[in-house]
Amino acid sequence: MATDYRVKEQLGDLTDRMVESYLEHGTINYLGHCPLPSATAVVDIVDDIKELLFPGYRRRQNLHVGNVTYFVGDLIDSLHDRLTQQFARAARYGHDALRGECSDAAMQQDFEALGQLQTVRFLNALPDIRALLATDVQAAFDGDPAASGYDEIIFCYPGLQAVTSYRIAHQLHRQGVPLIPRIISEHAHSTTGIDIHPGAKIGPSFFIDHGTGVVIGATCEIGSRVKIYQGVTLGALSFQKDEQGNLVRGVKRHPTIEDDVVVYANATVLGGETVVGANSVVGASVSLTRSVPPFTIVTIEKPQLRFRDVQPKPEAC
Amino acid sequence: MATDYRVKEQLGDLTDRMVESYLEHGTINYLGHCPLPSATAVVDIVDDIKELLFPGYRRRQNLHVGNVTYFVGDLIDSLHDRLTQQFARAARYGHDALRGECSDAAMQQDFEALGQLQTVRFLNALPDIRALLATDVQAAFDGDPAASGYDEIIFCYPGLQAVTSYRIAHQLHRQGVPLIPRIISEHAHSTTGIDIHPGAKIGPSFFIDHGTGVVIGATCEIGSRVKIYQGVTLGALSFQKDEQGNLVRGVKRHPTIEDDVVVYANATVLGGETVVGANSVVGASVSLTRSVPPFTIVTIEKPQLRFRDVQPKPEAC
Amino acid sequence: MATDYRVKEQLGDLTDRMVESYLEHGTINYLGHCPLPSATAVVDIVDDIKELLFPGYRRRQNLHVGNVTYFVGDLIDSLHDRLTQQFARAARYGHDALRGECSDAAMQQDFEALGQLQTVRFLNALPDIRALLATDVQAAFDGDPAASGYDEIIFCYPGLQAVTSYRIAHQLHRQGVPLIPRIISEHAHSTTGIDIHPGAKIGPSFFIDHGTGVVIGATCEIGSRVKIYQGVTLGALSFQKDEQGNLVRGVKRHPTIEDDVVVYANATVLGGETVVGANSVVGASVSLTRSVPPFTIVTIEKPQLRFRDVQPKPEAC
Repeated sequence: MATDYRVKEQLGDLTDRMVESYLEHGTINYLGHCPLPSATAVVDIVDDIKELLFPGYRRRQNLHVGNVTYFVGDLIDSLHDRLTQQFARAARYGHDALRGECSDAAMQQDFEALGQLQTVRFLNALPDIRALLATDVQAAFDGDPAASGYDEIIFCYPGLQAVTSYRIAHQLHRQGVPLIPRIISEHAHSTTGIDIHPGAKIGPSFFIDHGTGVVIGATCEIGSRVKIYQGVTLGALSFQKDEQGNLVRGVKRHPTIEDDVVVYANATVLGGETVVGANSVVGASVSLTRSVPPFTIVTIEKPQLRFRDVQPKPEAC
Repeated sequence: MATDYRVKEQLGDLTDRMVESYLEHGTINYLGHCPLPSATAVVDIVDDIKELLFPGYRRRQNLHVGNVTYFVGDLIDSLHDRLTQQFARAARYGHDALRGECSDAAMQQDFEALGQLQTVRFLNALPDIRALLATDVQAAFDGDPAASGYDEIIFCYPGLQAVTSYRIAHQLHRQGVPLIPRIISEHAHSTTGIDIHPGAKIGPSFFIDHGTGVVIGATCEIGSRVKIYQGVTLGALSFQKDEQGNLVRGVKRHPTIEDDVVVYANATVLGGETVVGANSVVGASVSLTRSVPPFTIVTIEKPQLRFRDVQPKPEAC
Repeated sequence: MATDYRVKEQLGDLTDRMVESYLEHGTINYLGHCPLPSATAVVDIVDDIKELLFPGYRRRQNLHVGNVTYFVGDLIDSLHDRLTQQFARAARYGHDALRGECSDAAMQQDFEALGQLQTVRFLNALPDIRALLATDVQAAFDGDPAASGYDEIIFCYPGLQAVTSYRIAHQLHRQGVPLIPRIISEHAHSTTGIDIHPGAKIGPSFFIDHGTGVVIGATCEIGSRVKIYQGVTLGALSFQKDEQGNLVRGVKRHPTIEDDVVVYANATVLGGETVVGANSVVGASVSLTRSVPPFTIVTIEKPQLRFRDVQPKPEAC
């Protein structure tokens, strides 16, 4: 017989060892009666929010002026209930004292009510987010000669997907919702290769072309009409530590990019005090760790390449 | 009670504001009776086309000489119907005058017929695409010492996945199918991190190793037996604008890579007039904006690094 | 009528041409009675293994001390059966002589038994893998000031996802399981942009921040407490060929990174003889192809940038 069931019966020992490991390394499991937000539910909610923001492109087709109000009303109603549940879980999670412990009934109701408040505040921000995204779509069209039209951008461009997720996550970050903004941004990172921290501040008409490998740190400040290409890092130079040797959290570690700046492929701009002045251009593969004034073009110096001719020579006869 | 239903009833206002926003920012919604191609359907179709191209690896297992003809015949029949529907939608979409407006019955039938013509032309190209892909698989095996065999390459290599999607999308691009080639290429970009525009022209025996961050622009021309590593950009140098300040679309903006060239990790080759001559090598992290003749090795000059010893010194006593 | 069914009936010819193509280009199809491992099944198994390693975060919520033993016991039982099936397929596949040919019944049972042995060995390694991952989570918290806590890291960080998949795949690689380790690592590559070959050796407390574009080659050796940023390549310099011009497989081609090293964004370290000594720092965008001693900071030399002022001047009057 192929499978030996006596072997299988010994797996009970392994079960015991795994459960012991949950006690020994207790920082990497989450046991208790208060569930965390569900990443799957959050991702599904974000997809539905994108339906509201860009109706007619993805999940639901055949929308027209005659039925769109029903669709929107129904979807907002459903989003209200699902967001309230997830925000309530996140709020309960964020309440450190209750970590892993479920509260009494009254306490639980407070989180439900808080979740609903957060939901209503967030949903009411959607029309403004949509107005911002309209500027981002226009910036993509104005910035990419390969774009055939707005629809291709909304349908296909990973940059717009990442920026849409960022604008949703940033609103939640501003509202102080724990954990969920990062679930949203890392899901967008996974599907687009673009990693924008929800804490970054980004102005209108923002365009990321191609985008794979872009990193925009938590304390970046980006002005209006900025254009960024694939592989660009707007990152930290080094991390401050306190007297105990622990990282100092919360200080500005990432650069400021002023209005109308272009940062080309694979450039790296580092440091919380680094400011790229308005109307400047940071060339491809530049590594920048100091500020530059407005109207500056920064490029890699030319003579950094070495050329060798390796053509096979005709043999002497 | 946790959830306050009076709050919820106020969401009707939000519905009205969202619908108003569709009128105000009308460029980023698609309302009308003519549905766009479905991205979900297109992605599913591409997965099935990959079953035809590489049978036995993914969705359907246990294929053998005795049943493969039934499998192929059935799958082609199903693809015919699904492709016709999506190509008809794309054709109707591409027909600008009808944007958002549904045509009369006769007009609709024309698009169906056009969709079917495109489908038959595309399906008949599959054996040639398969022959090309056999050269790409061989190139991967010849180019990567970590490859254990052909099957690992077909099963696992993101480069081959991206090139397969590219060869499908390029055929549709040549046929003039709107929108769908870009849906296919951006889906491949999302799953592989490799961004190949369907308009690029790429010869046989093409191999991309690792691949994350690769960008190959719409007007690139790549010869035979070219090998490219992760993070390589074959991109545009800058964009021409016309007298109105609008981008000029359609000119050659991306480089030409001749036969038997290798481009190593994170190198950047930019510009429509840049030609990398046959048998040349572009080294890791090189940023190249001018042409090089055949048989040239381009590397970064060596003395660009600074080394500092920071070893803690024994204290003087 | 829109669809012309006479056209459709001609698709039989195409079916014949596709099937002929399977004979002509036989290296890129897998026809026979011995199925390959199922990539879909393997991905699902890995998700369940992550449930065991980090319980309470993802698929199953509401786990607590009172029910976690049942959950773990049941999941291990299910994993035993599914892993045995996939490992048996992989073992049969790895047995070259049987490629594409199904064996007699006795032979098949041997692979089943071998699959079970591999399964039990692998499952018993999970507590140790979990202990290693606890050091990786701690390293992420210690290394990233943007991390709000352990839970955010386990929930969201792509670096931890990739390292978890790597530690699973590396165990299977050590056990000599064919094909499945690479299916696991390329799935992680697809979702995180981080490409770690299962053959690499990586010590505890390993942290990859952001991660998109990271490549760690098959023969890398990485010590303890190493930190790596997005876009870093630990790759091969060039490939040896034997006298027949074929690639030499199996030699050390990738670098050694000793304990407590930091490699910043987009740096490239190449070559099997390159050793980055303990406590060294490789700066952003550095391209390194030679060894550096311990306690060395390697940076790009400063004066490689060119700054041009392009501010529009007030017109002379």
